[in-house]
Amino acid sequence: MTQLVKIQSFTVSSDGFGSGEGQSLEQPFGHVSPAELFAWRFQTASFSGPIGTRGIDDVLARDMNVGIGAEIMGRNKFGPVRGPWVDEQWQGWWGDDPPFHVPVFVLTHHARPPLTLADTTFHFVAGTPADIVREAKAAANGLDVRLGGGVQTNRTFLDADLVDTLHVVVSPMVFGRGERFWTGPEELFDRFDHEEIASPSGVKHYLFWRK
Amino acid sequence: MTQLVKIQSFTVSSDGFGSGEGQSLEQPFGHVSPAELFAWRFQTASFSGPIGTRGIDDVLARDMNVGIGAEIMGRNKFGPVRGPWVDEQWQGWWGDDPPFHVPVFVLTHHARPPLTLADTTFHFVAGTPADIVREAKAAANGLDVRLGGGVQTNRTFLDADLVDTLHVVVSPMVFGRGERFWTGPEELFDRFDHEEIASPSGVKHYLFWRK
Repeated sequence: MTQLVKIQSFTVSSDGFGSGEGQSLEQPFGHVSPAELFAWRFQTASFSGPIGTRGIDDVLARDMNVGIGAEIMGRNKFGPVRGPWVDEQWQGWWGDDPPFHVPVFVLTHHARPPLTLADTTFHFVAGTPADIVREAKAAANGLDVRLGGGVQTNRTFLDADLVDTLHVVVSPMVFGRGERFWTGPEELFDRFDHEEIASPSGVKHYLFWRK
Repeated sequence: MTQLVKIQSFTVSSDGFGSGEGQSLEQPFGHVSPAELFAWRFQTASFSGPIGTRGIDDVLARDMNVGIGAEIMGRNKFGPVRGPWVDEQWQGWWGDDPPFHVPVFVLTHHARPPLTLADTTFHFVAGTPADIVREAKAAANGLDVRLGGGVQTNRTFLDADLVDTLHVVVSPMVFGRGERFWTGPEELFDRFDHEEIASPSGVKHYLFWRK
């Protein structure tokens, strides 16, 4: 079976930013509110249980983990530490039981031994995007690999033509500045087939798959 | 966690029929072609692999098994045998490795010992719809229960108000006669919230969840 590299439930503002400006420990999304950016997801039953909606947002939120055997993430998603690991106290944002449950490959040029928390192991890796994809696929037990962000990481792998499918959620918010993912979905129309689905929650879901 | 009873990827004609007239061993859908009825699903990568589409039809086809721990099916879905089991030669349509991989409850008033094929066990059960749901939930390992058809079975449980969510696919075909599921989606609007998504393949997806 073909193993895909997938961007899943990746949310950007209507002006194409996946994060605001001035990221910090206190404000991991900078000047914008992740609660607003991800409101479409928080409203779903997948996230909020029985009080949540069970429409198309919920189906797509639930699909985020389906068939995924490994994740690749940028170092900034793993945490706010920059440069060499001064110590290894920082263990990610997610506490003792991270929500991944699969091997996670954290991109960094600074070596660190693997970190296992419950059934998630973080591997700290350097190499070309193609190297990292090869490593993640080998660890994914025949399943697909999710490219988990942030913005720059997703864009790097997309530019290297290593992404097979994308689910990008365009939120009606305008950020004005921050980390840009794209100028607009049209950018990808030459390389990918696509569909566009408007949700009653106000977001638009774009599904792309390689031509 | 709440266990739901779900109708998933259930396809009907634009005039509301889930099957044609005159079902038989050779023509399990009677006078209509299942290849046409399910064309939306056959075109997806979930069904057809790399040559398939990866849009909304594919996401919803893939969702069919997600979080499902047991299935309830009518006897006519299990096979063409009617009345008492003359012998137990008939083992379903699916060969040695049925695609369920969870306990399946087959509705029949005619007793028969459980049948295990690979990791699927068929239980032959009688009782009220509420009894069957209780039994299927107990076997579902905390996961949801799928109501797997046919038309009459789905409708019986729906009429008994035992269904929590429905994903109904309305195909553009007209059958004229056969087993009717509904006169139209409006029938359910009083009991369920709903969303409607038009797919480029020509089908409409209806998602319903209990108000």
